[in-house]
Amino acid sequence: MSRFRLTVDDHIMIAHSLQDPFFGPAQNLHGATLSIQASFFRDGLNEYGVVLDIGAASELLAATLEPLRYQNLDEVDALAGKFTTTEVIIEHIAETLAAGLPADHGLTALEVQAEEHPRARASVWVQL
Amino acid sequence: MSRFRLTVDDHIMIAHSLQDPFFGPAQNLHGATLSIQASFFRDGLNEYGVVLDIGAASELLAATLEPLRYQNLDEVDALAGKFTTTEVIIEHIAETLAAGLPADHGLTALEVQAEEHPRARASVWVQL
Amino acid sequence: MSRFRLTVDDHIMIAHSLQDPFFGPAQNLHGATLSIQASFFRDGLNEYGVVLDIGAASELLAATLEPLRYQNLDEVDALAGKFTTTEVIIEHIAETLAAGLPADHGLTALEVQAEEHPRARASVWVQL
Amino acid sequence: MSRFRLTVDDHIMIAHSLQDPFFGPAQNLHGATLSIQASFFRDGLNEYGVVLDIGAASELLAATLEPLRYQNLDEVDALAGKFTTTEVIIEHIAETLAAGLPADHGLTALEVQAEEHPRARASVWVQL
Amino acid sequence: MSRFRLTVDDHIMIAHSLQDPFFGPAQNLHGATLSIQASFFRDGLNEYGVVLDIGAASELLAATLEPLRYQNLDEVDALAGKFTTTEVIIEHIAETLAAGLPADHGLTALEVQAEEHPRARASVWVQL
Amino acid sequence: MSRFRLTVDDHIMIAHSLQDPFFGPAQNLHGATLSIQASFFRDGLNEYGVVLDIGAASELLAATLEPLRYQNLDEVDALAGKFTTTEVIIEHIAETLAAGLPADHGLTALEVQAEEHPRARASVWVQL
Repeated sequence: MSRFRLTVDDHIMIAHSLQDPFFGPAQNLHGATLSIQASFFRDGLNEYGVVLDIGAASELLAATLEPLRYQNLDEVDALAGKFTTTEVIIEHIAETLAAGLPADHGLTALEVQAEEHPRARASVWVQL
Repeated sequence: MSRFRLTVDDHIMIAHSLQDPFFGPAQNLHGATLSIQASFFRDGLNEYGVVLDIGAASELLAATLEPLRYQNLDEVDALAGKFTTTEVIIEHIAETLAAGLPADHGLTALEVQAEEHPRARASVWVQL
Repeated sequence: MSRFRLTVDDHIMIAHSLQDPFFGPAQNLHGATLSIQASFFRDGLNEYGVVLDIGAASELLAATLEPLRYQNLDEVDALAGKFTTTEVIIEHIAETLAAGLPADHGLTALEVQAEEHPRARASVWVQL
Repeated sequence: MSRFRLTVDDHIMIAHSLQDPFFGPAQNLHGATLSIQASFFRDGLNEYGVVLDIGAASELLAATLEPLRYQNLDEVDALAGKFTTTEVIIEHIAETLAAGLPADHGLTALEVQAEEHPRARASVWVQL
Repeated sequence: MSRFRLTVDDHIMIAHSLQDPFFGPAQNLHGATLSIQASFFRDGLNEYGVVLDIGAASELLAATLEPLRYQNLDEVDALAGKFTTTEVIIEHIAETLAAGLPADHGLTALEVQAEEHPRARASVWVQL
Repeated sequence: MSRFRLTVDDHIMIAHSLQDPFFGPAQNLHGATLSIQASFFRDGLNEYGVVLDIGAASELLAATLEPLRYQNLDEVDALAGKFTTTEVIIEHIAETLAAGLPADHGLTALEVQAEEHPRARASVWVQL
């Protein structure tokens, strides 16, 4: 069996602060561009020879990111009470993406990666 | 046990059309540069401390891609009757690569990734 | 005086053939993804502290590229009678971009770059 | 005469808001990772065969960026009363870099580029 | 369960020779810049919402690479008697990283990737 | 007049040492992968709609780099008596490239860039 992955890119630009001494200077209100890569996994392909419609994948990712664009994450309800680390943000994105998939998606897993600066990135893999 | 991956790069420039309304404007005869990354997986290393000879890996990939270079995929027999999506192309490449491996390759899997434009890519993983 | 450049990215996926023995295997009908970078030059900034509105720059580039997306350049009237090399395509894009600028643009030059594959790219610089 | 450029990289992660309807959703308090490339130009090389000591170049850039790291630019005095666009930020960085050069630098110009997200960047070139 | 990966980057610049005819021209004393990516895997996140402290991850990687920086690997005791291929170097780095983790790390695996030139890279994955 | 640039890529892997206290740890015998970008400038295009034949450009660059591949630059005669900094190496490459151009090249300038590691690069521009 061939295992496929389709990946589409987007990005968000957000402000936030990480309110614990653990985070050092990142306790300040600052911000980040998060370059996002969302991957969709499937065993074999659908009748059109794709993992899923790439336009649908891009639109689903864009819709998922929309509530986060140009926001101060310290004031976003969906993330209230959490440290909005890159890891927490991508888990939130992955869970929202998963919830938005059509019922007959045929996928086995999702992965969301965020590069927060040129020298560090994080990803999360979620089985469906 | 350490699990190793060796990846080599190449690319092809092809024309094609995707003849179904599902594909929207990609029904037109158009084209793509597919940046290809072929990965070879091995548990542990051979007696030279490598996954496989990197020169042999590059030559095998180049030989695999040769019949596709500067082609209109709508007229390539090996892909006749299929939608030549990125996913279908990389599965074809992965299968051809696998068939061309020497008998004693010692590898466990292959992965072929193609980036078709700066914001989307697909990969396929095949167990050997 | 500070000289500024603002660059926005887009891409097109086209088919074409280069009909002269000079072009070797590229005489075949094949294709390419052209990753486009359009740069706008200005001496100093406007009253909003920018070279030009980045949204307007992206939309102007997108509108310029629209007639080329998913096309076979062998059949595009605007390029008839020319070898549609990367250089010729980017000159066409730069001239169309220049013609579409608002009257009071305040810019000094444009540059259009296209990367046709991971190991080669071309650019053209046009004074306004 | 050979004209040389030496470029070193760094980055900052900042919050800001752009308070004019011109900026659309960027009027919100949000943030960005700015990947910075600072280039130093020189005609010919010094007695060590370099444009300048690369360690000194990196330290000068880091010292220049230090007051901006993890800051909300809406509250940074050096940028008060300005729209803190990417262009304005890089001009500020370039001027600070220029002021920090040793007296006998032998350079002809500086360039500072910032990539604010994967699809847009700006640069400024300043003659010394 | 969400599976997370945190990746940090660094690089080393080393000389070496690969003393066997198998390696062709790489038998000469030559060198390489190895761009290193170290990934840390964890199921779920710690109490701060991260895989591990990113500063600690970067420092651990830097400390691991320190004995290799600006070295001729033909004279490094830790690699004596081995072909210092990219694969062997990254296995050495991965093992040293693993040995340097704090006792309560909570991680499941490490991966170390090295890009030795723009067209080839290798990685090793080690279960903890 | 439109000013064009064509850029082709290659790389070399070399050893060297920089024998002066100015260079700190780089006094050790170490090495580097130099990712090379050679650019060719032309005002307008030739009769084939290109700056120059891209195959010829790549071959000229490859031939220029051949004597440096897998070498210890401390022992390369052409660089004897010089600090083999990135800047010195690229000037040598640019001069060799210029000397190898055909008599009727029609070019106005060359630029050679080398990225020695992911966070630093240098370039040289030479008028023809």
